[in-house]
Amino acid sequence: MLRIGMLTSGGDCQALNAAMRGVVKGICSKRKDVEIYGFKDGYKGLIYANFEMLTSKDFSGILTRGGTILGTSRQPFKLMRVPDENGLDKVAAMKHTYHKLSLDCLVILGGNGTHKTANMLREEGLNIITLPKTIDNDLWGTDMTFGFQSAVDIATDTIDRIHTTATSHSRVFIIEVMGHKVGHVTLHAGIAGGADIILLPEIPYDINVIADVIHKRTEAGKPFTILAVAEGAISKEDAKLKKKEYKEKLEKRKYPSIAYELAEQIQKKTDKEVRITVPGHTQRGGSPCPYDRVFSTRVGAAAAQLILDEDYGYMIAMRNGETVKVPLQDVAGKLKYVDPKCSLIKEAKLTGISFGDEL
Amino acid sequence: MLRIGMLTSGGDCQALNAAMRGVVKGICSKRKDVEIYGFKDGYKGLIYANFEMLTSKDFSGILTRGGTILGTSRQPFKLMRVPDENGLDKVAAMKHTYHKLSLDCLVILGGNGTHKTANMLREEGLNIITLPKTIDNDLWGTDMTFGFQSAVDIATDTIDRIHTTATSHSRVFIIEVMGHKVGHVTLHAGIAGGADIILLPEIPYDINVIADVIHKRTEAGKPFTILAVAEGAISKEDAKLKKKEYKEKLEKRKYPSIAYELAEQIQKKTDKEVRITVPGHTQRGGSPCPYDRVFSTRVGAAAAQLILDEDYGYMIAMRNGETVKVPLQDVAGKLKYVDPKCSLIKEAKLTGISFGDEL
Amino acid sequence: MLRIGMLTSGGDCQALNAAMRGVVKGICSKRKDVEIYGFKDGYKGLIYANFEMLTSKDFSGILTRGGTILGTSRQPFKLMRVPDENGLDKVAAMKHTYHKLSLDCLVILGGNGTHKTANMLREEGLNIITLPKTIDNDLWGTDMTFGFQSAVDIATDTIDRIHTTATSHSRVFIIEVMGHKVGHVTLHAGIAGGADIILLPEIPYDINVIADVIHKRTEAGKPFTILAVAEGAISKEDAKLKKKEYKEKLEKRKYPSIAYELAEQIQKKTDKEVRITVPGHTQRGGSPCPYDRVFSTRVGAAAAQLILDEDYGYMIAMRNGETVKVPLQDVAGKLKYVDPKCSLIKEAKLTGISFGDEL
Amino acid sequence: MLRIGMLTSGGDCQALNAAMRGVVKGICSKRKDVEIYGFKDGYKGLIYANFEMLTSKDFSGILTRGGTILGTSRQPFKLMRVPDENGLDKVAAMKHTYHKLSLDCLVILGGNGTHKTANMLREEGLNIITLPKTIDNDLWGTDMTFGFQSAVDIATDTIDRIHTTATSHSRVFIIEVMGHKVGHVTLHAGIAGGADIILLPEIPYDINVIADVIHKRTEAGKPFTILAVAEGAISKEDAKLKKKEYKEKLEKRKYPSIAYELAEQIQKKTDKEVRITVPGHTQRGGSPCPYDRVFSTRVGAAAAQLILDEDYGYMIAMRNGETVKVPLQDVAGKLKYVDPKCSLIKEAKLTGISFGDEL
Repeated sequence: MLRIGMLTSGGDCQALNAAMRGVVKGICSKRKDVEIYGFKDGYKGLIYANFEMLTSKDFSGILTRGGTILGTSRQPFKLMRVPDENGLDKVAAMKHTYHKLSLDCLVILGGNGTHKTANMLREEGLNIITLPKTIDNDLWGTDMTFGFQSAVDIATDTIDRIHTTATSHSRVFIIEVMGHKVGHVTLHAGIAGGADIILLPEIPYDINVIADVIHKRTEAGKPFTILAVAEGAISKEDAKLKKKEYKEKLEKRKYPSIAYELAEQIQKKTDKEVRITVPGHTQRGGSPCPYDRVFSTRVGAAAAQLILDEDYGYMIAMRNGETVKVPLQDVAGKLKYVDPKCSLIKEAKLTGISFGDEL
Repeated sequence: MLRIGMLTSGGDCQALNAAMRGVVKGICSKRKDVEIYGFKDGYKGLIYANFEMLTSKDFSGILTRGGTILGTSRQPFKLMRVPDENGLDKVAAMKHTYHKLSLDCLVILGGNGTHKTANMLREEGLNIITLPKTIDNDLWGTDMTFGFQSAVDIATDTIDRIHTTATSHSRVFIIEVMGHKVGHVTLHAGIAGGADIILLPEIPYDINVIADVIHKRTEAGKPFTILAVAEGAISKEDAKLKKKEYKEKLEKRKYPSIAYELAEQIQKKTDKEVRITVPGHTQRGGSPCPYDRVFSTRVGAAAAQLILDEDYGYMIAMRNGETVKVPLQDVAGKLKYVDPKCSLIKEAKLTGISFGDEL
Repeated sequence: MLRIGMLTSGGDCQALNAAMRGVVKGICSKRKDVEIYGFKDGYKGLIYANFEMLTSKDFSGILTRGGTILGTSRQPFKLMRVPDENGLDKVAAMKHTYHKLSLDCLVILGGNGTHKTANMLREEGLNIITLPKTIDNDLWGTDMTFGFQSAVDIATDTIDRIHTTATSHSRVFIIEVMGHKVGHVTLHAGIAGGADIILLPEIPYDINVIADVIHKRTEAGKPFTILAVAEGAISKEDAKLKKKEYKEKLEKRKYPSIAYELAEQIQKKTDKEVRITVPGHTQRGGSPCPYDRVFSTRVGAAAAQLILDEDYGYMIAMRNGETVKVPLQDVAGKLKYVDPKCSLIKEAKLTGISFGDEL
Repeated sequence: MLRIGMLTSGGDCQALNAAMRGVVKGICSKRKDVEIYGFKDGYKGLIYANFEMLTSKDFSGILTRGGTILGTSRQPFKLMRVPDENGLDKVAAMKHTYHKLSLDCLVILGGNGTHKTANMLREEGLNIITLPKTIDNDLWGTDMTFGFQSAVDIATDTIDRIHTTATSHSRVFIIEVMGHKVGHVTLHAGIAGGADIILLPEIPYDINVIADVIHKRTEAGKPFTILAVAEGAISKEDAKLKKKEYKEKLEKRKYPSIAYELAEQIQKKTDKEVRITVPGHTQRGGSPCPYDRVFSTRVGAAAAQLILDEDYGYMIAMRNGETVKVPLQDVAGKLKYVDPKCSLIKEAKLTGISFGDEL
């Protein structure tokens, strides 16, 4: 008997179900003696042994369904190795569940935080296989994560719609794209949507540069400007602050988010009407795009193969179009940022996109 | 020679181009001696004689294009009959342009404010035909306006995406839908998207009722709630204020919009995480939906027929599936609100949707 | 205890699930003592007492899901009152199931054929409520059926995509739209997609007129032509044949469908390359459009109200924007065709669309 | 003065305009003294010196527009070096146009056939830069071509829609996907759409295997089957024929395409109803997907950089996420097929997809 535990952790995204379907279809095409334990709401389900027994039938027809049939939660991994306020040692609890159910392997789908915990469980001797899930595409060790392209599609669709209305008025439109620490989604959606200005956490902006770009466009007979900004975009001044100082500054900010702050500053400096769009969690919602479905099916199947081979301790990554296994210890705790000097940024700048950093 | 002026005024929306294409194709299929004057940016273009000569070719291929090829602006009609700060009498200026160009007719596409001005121009002796444009569907005298169904589609798509992510978490999601005075878009998108709570300007809400609905859903094993709120939704207390008092209160509000205010109140009363999505101007953007394309082509063609018949002074309306002409004086200055007692509201309530007004 | 049977019959379409959800949510918001019997695969399930007990939970989350959770089939109603080859009297069998389960009412969702059978069951003394389902919008007594607008959206999307490729080449593109007997879908999608020629079963075409339109477009500098044709479009010569003769002719036709026949004829007469697109059953697939969701929720809720009122023997129709009840005997056996003289056709012709009947 | 010629050749696809926009924006951001000659309808425009002078403004706003603003045609490159029936030496004619206009460089966007001609022109001493355009993704030397992901998206959408209707009936659905020689689009769309059987030109099928798969699905309680077939899929018997014999066989075939032939065979062998969908040229139509927009902007910008550097004779390729230049002589005349032993096929088979080649 092969006993597989499975959980999804962190912010949800498209293709979580597709990836799990790939794992289960892959295993069940080779083995009939399989038990699948679906833990509910992320690591919580493992800690409190809250699970459902699932069969391959439960994974049928979910290729196109958004969200996760297992539920998810953001479990603060920091607390894991110290007992919490109720005296619960969470790592011990998870190990206990794993062993009590005699699991052969635990399949974990998640992003950065999730991988730290997954690696910790691996260090504790559990058999772990992980899949790279996040709309942010900020996981180290893989060219791509599932959810990313779907999020880009949605953010681009938002910019597209704004474009038609923008051309009918003489305004600045700000679209706030998800991404607190990294700007991959904003960068790709911004280029795909034909944004004039793209602001990323990795490239601090100068509000005067932004105002200048808008002025120059107006002078050149282009009365509107489309600005795509990542949630975590930061000005050059704020980038000089210490992390703690900046955090305090943010907490005192009167605006709910960066888009509203930029709007006020741009309105002051350019005398243009500014309009804001915050697609928010739509970027995590809906059916995965075909790219993500193929991608997640592939990494799911590759995970299944590893499990059939009893070869544990890896994240399945995509590199140069091929699925590969990457040791968990190499992945955990590392973020993949947008490199301000990468060829994509250079190409974007060459086509006239401003990143707010220079004229 | 037939000389037609044309302008689009007010907030832009989908199908403006489609409607103009219908007018021009309709006229040019019967008459070859036609001159078309496209005034730029709404009434401004008429006031300052800022126009372009267009041919039927300019209207080819624009059936699916969002925005308006003429540009638009929100011209404050109030000032129209008194000279402005530069001594300009705008109504006189518009009449002057009309007569100088020897126009036979002026086709005006717009919403409520636009129709007041259009009627004023009719009273001044100009030949006017108007088309009912607005995403709000709040024009009196017609069952439908173009832009409405497209806006409903986009707002519904937003709620759909939120739905998949909502089911994976235990949260309240607020989607803020366009509509300051009327709630038609929110009502239709809310029902189409399966919202649990719908808040409209026409049905003042009680925050305690909202909290109760969320509690009851949680108790019934539905940990998430989708709330669709119109920009102009109002609480029962605020609905008792005088208009001026309420306006002052709004100006002092620390939130950029109703969604953020509701979020804070719900978070306090239910202890649930709340997430906000503001699709904003996306609701006016992109290609018109097929419904709006057929609708706008029809009213455009019907306008063409009136012009060919030299029968002026009407808005083309849609009533019971047929295009009809409605005297401009009957339309101007009237809004079509959501009737809280209409069968649509009753049917929505019967299926379990709360409007925040009663348990 | 309220015992409701439910079945979906005929070709499937979008919003079947949405409509059933409306019925169930509507009833269950007022009554807790409800049993729902879902018969499988249309009338077959009723004949053979093949059903599932369902609860309101089974209808949760299916608002946006295409297809029907009950399955469907095309049951030949003709045979119903005579025993079949196995000696089975189907009408008697259906009555038997109904009474054995002590049903209070049977809710039937279907199109034209379905309604004949439904009316027969009513005549046999069963309590029947029906809902108007069909992409064809050919049910008599209602302005609209659910599925129609969704099908129009998909067919229009097909034409839209063809449009961009058409403008890059000098070709004739034929899009074959669903509709064997009536042309509503083709008519609306054709107008919405900007088709140059629309061929409907109700307006017999002349191939020479079609060739002329293509020639004239070429001469006017428009090298491509988009032709939307309903499956059941018929030439003027064939329209003169007796029904039986035409049926025989069709059976001998070497082409799989009208599009391929037209392609050959047009290629011969115009020397243009012709390309064919057959969206086929995609027109019945996918999530219902927001219009259909609101519509089906409304008629579902209105059906629920009738059941709560124990007022049986009706189809719920939509007339002038209001849900109304129409006696089943008035609906059964009547088709709603496109009237060649209706204002929609006139408006379409005025904008330059050819229906292949006249120059 | 920098004089750039530009043409698009072969079947059109999405992102042609986006790619040209990338080239022009890239050049014009660095040089102001640029003349752009847009040749009409592919190589024809170059042969007959049929061109338009374009400015950067003409490339503004076309990022999202399908088709090609230059038009295209399939020019038979075979005839190029021998005078045609009118005594025209096409290669000489193209050289003459190039030199007469004193072009510095010719930018050519096209697929396989286009690249053979492009390389021939390079051998004749012309400065050539090419961009990899084709929905088929069959160009050698690049991981990706633009148009491919957009075509996959559309074909997947088709399968998705069929899926919902398939689950409501007990049928086999065949979707015919573009690809006469290579199966990349069918493979990706098949996996993304959850097809049960995928038939590719590169993996000859056995009709008995297909029938077996359908039978086994029926036995396992899955009454429907989705089959995605590439236009050029071939049976094991036909794959043994000589090329010429097979071509003759195809010409005698009574069916318009493979889907109709398969349908008859499957209907005979399984007694199941079969339905066919032929999305056809929709797969080339509509706005490019965000992936293709970023991709085409990147290769466009990279082409611009080469032109600015006066470094000619290359196709811009994408390899491992980076734009690279590949010598034209290495690309011309080579096709990139689906490798039946690649990891993608293995992963697909592991998840239970049949390729009709083995049980």
